[in-house]
Amino acid sequence: MKFTIQRDYFITQLNDTLKAISPRTTLPILTGIKIDASDNKLVLTGSDSEVSIEITIPAEINHEEIVTIEEKGSIVLPGRFFVDIIKKLPAASVIIETNSQFQAKITSGQSEFNVSGLDPDQYPLLPQVSEQDSMTLPIKVLKNVIRQTNFAVSTSETRPVLTGVNWLIKDGELSCTATDSHRLALRRLKLENASVDNINAIIPGKALNELNKIINDDDETIEIFFAANQVLFKVGHINFISRLLEGNYPDTSRLFPESYETSLAIDNGDFFHAIDRASLLAREGGNNVIKLSADQNQVELSSTSPEIGTVKEDVATSRFEGQGLKISFNSKYMMDALRAIDNDEVSVEFFGTMRPFILKPKDDENVIQLILPIRTY
Amino acid sequence: MKFTIQRDYFITQLNDTLKAISPRTTLPILTGIKIDASDNKLVLTGSDSEVSIEITIPAEINHEEIVTIEEKGSIVLPGRFFVDIIKKLPAASVIIETNSQFQAKITSGQSEFNVSGLDPDQYPLLPQVSEQDSMTLPIKVLKNVIRQTNFAVSTSETRPVLTGVNWLIKDGELSCTATDSHRLALRRLKLENASVDNINAIIPGKALNELNKIINDDDETIEIFFAANQVLFKVGHINFISRLLEGNYPDTSRLFPESYETSLAIDNGDFFHAIDRASLLAREGGNNVIKLSADQNQVELSSTSPEIGTVKEDVATSRFEGQGLKISFNSKYMMDALRAIDNDEVSVEFFGTMRPFILKPKDDENVIQLILPIRTY
Repeated sequence: MKFTIQRDYFITQLNDTLKAISPRTTLPILTGIKIDASDNKLVLTGSDSEVSIEITIPAEINHEEIVTIEEKGSIVLPGRFFVDIIKKLPAASVIIETNSQFQAKITSGQSEFNVSGLDPDQYPLLPQVSEQDSMTLPIKVLKNVIRQTNFAVSTSETRPVLTGVNWLIKDGELSCTATDSHRLALRRLKLENASVDNINAIIPGKALNELNKIINDDDETIEIFFAANQVLFKVGHINFISRLLEGNYPDTSRLFPESYETSLAIDNGDFFHAIDRASLLAREGGNNVIKLSADQNQVELSSTSPEIGTVKEDVATSRFEGQGLKISFNSKYMMDALRAIDNDEVSVEFFGTMRPFILKPKDDENVIQLILPIRTY
Repeated sequence: MKFTIQRDYFITQLNDTLKAISPRTTLPILTGIKIDASDNKLVLTGSDSEVSIEITIPAEINHEEIVTIEEKGSIVLPGRFFVDIIKKLPAASVIIETNSQFQAKITSGQSEFNVSGLDPDQYPLLPQVSEQDSMTLPIKVLKNVIRQTNFAVSTSETRPVLTGVNWLIKDGELSCTATDSHRLALRRLKLENASVDNINAIIPGKALNELNKIINDDDETIEIFFAANQVLFKVGHINFISRLLEGNYPDTSRLFPESYETSLAIDNGDFFHAIDRASLLAREGGNNVIKLSADQNQVELSSTSPEIGTVKEDVATSRFEGQGLKISFNSKYMMDALRAIDNDEVSVEFFGTMRPFILKPKDDENVIQLILPIRTY
């Protein structure tokens, strides 16, 4: 294998490939990046066996030469170390040449590295996902969907399915649900360009996090393909493949109560910042518990920690229906939920002191955040 | 005590005060910030008993009101927690009021905190440094002196004096020396505004680091006062006091050899970046050792690690005198030394493979960096 490549462009693609690579892997070869040079393109592969990223670098982009391949071939090079070298090389282009002992000679300007690589035939095969039935989403929408649900997945491995987000596609609607059993985030979306239907998949939260870091608004849309155990996200020259979580996701539809006892509307920013301040004391006190007392036109937030002190915050409501109420909640869950609501005004519905309550954007049923209260009153 | 203060200005001063405070302290009251309100000013004090920072907030600055004191008094409030609260408060000003049980009521907009404080009489007294004999340095010069020497102090407590920088003032010249016994950094400076002489002080490297973070180029000069066990840096409204290290600093003057065997001049940036690249492999190999081979007009750098690979870098010299040479060094020490040399061109003088070598800016004897080689050839 021998090729010459534009260093800046190479660095960007290598950085994206690295995102799939974990330094803690049971299979040592997976700490490496696989490089395949064929006739007119270079393919970079990184994988931690749960998530795989495959990036294609074309010979030229907009008539500008990116890579010149003089000899075809493949190698696996030590991921992080190789990328560090490429980043620090002195010249605008880099020449990489391998020999039959999987040694790579890397030259740029007056700098020459010889790095030991591994046999690419030892690198695991990537899962193949058929590119038949797909759905297409605008990148901005996908990033919102991830932002509005992913934070609520469980970080505990006690119930592995809860570490993923449940994607349900039915009758042209996508609904994404995440819950750690203390709070739940739901995002619904009408699909416009979808040839898939009746999908019930659990995508690992970690994979969606990594995907969110890689995709950016330069590309307008992303194609999504589902297979039995895998999902493929295809955007520009990047293939992002994640395994799906096995098991049955709990039916969460019965969690949403029917008629509220108290309903109010409140300014998102004012509410968020008041909770943020009260949480300083709640956190210092060690339990993160904030008390809320709602009455006509006003919400009072408070927290007390005998050794440290007390805090009291007043926030005006713009609408108030039903009866007054006292309830306690975990400040972190509440702030996560408010962050996921883009609207300046938030509707909050309470169903009694001991039952979960709901937050959603004003006049919008497509984002619903549900939080279990804490028993203190 | 009761006062109203501009929140933004208060935050900046609190952040600087916090820099003296360590969360790990043997004296619990030192995790707090002491606030003294007198007739027309507020004084903030933070200390970890080694370094103390005292900041004076005047009633007004440029005819703009900063703080209004309604009732004099003092209190100690929990440092980090108190600053977090002030940062997150909603309004442009904050009112702080204390009662006789050392409780502080903090109000701003619709937010009200009650925080437990401590008795200010329990706070240790700051050392008094007489403000008689002083020297004045431009801030930029002091920051350079710190940057060019401080990195070379020892991080080991085996010989405590080596964790400080030795400041010697004699015959109107300041010379600052730092060494960890593997390398040495020396900076010399003619003093213009000094009424002090015959000073031999060891200032802790940590204190100089903190000082460097607090002072900025807004103020033009800094005044420095030495007492038997303390040094006071006075800049604008900040008093920065550090204890001095006790003990005798070793005489390092005999370390500098007389006549070189090899002398060369080399581009600082090219040399630095070549070492930086070679160090990637040296670091991966675990020993940080880089070999240098100097010959007419060229320096070759190399490093080898049997399992990982090899690297070779060529850098042209702009001047070469004396005989060819092979020597090995720790890449980190070399990069630190080159960073401390502002000049684009560096003079390097070698006195043989096993003896310390010297780096300095071209045509300048005020900055000297000395490095012990590693025995490999």
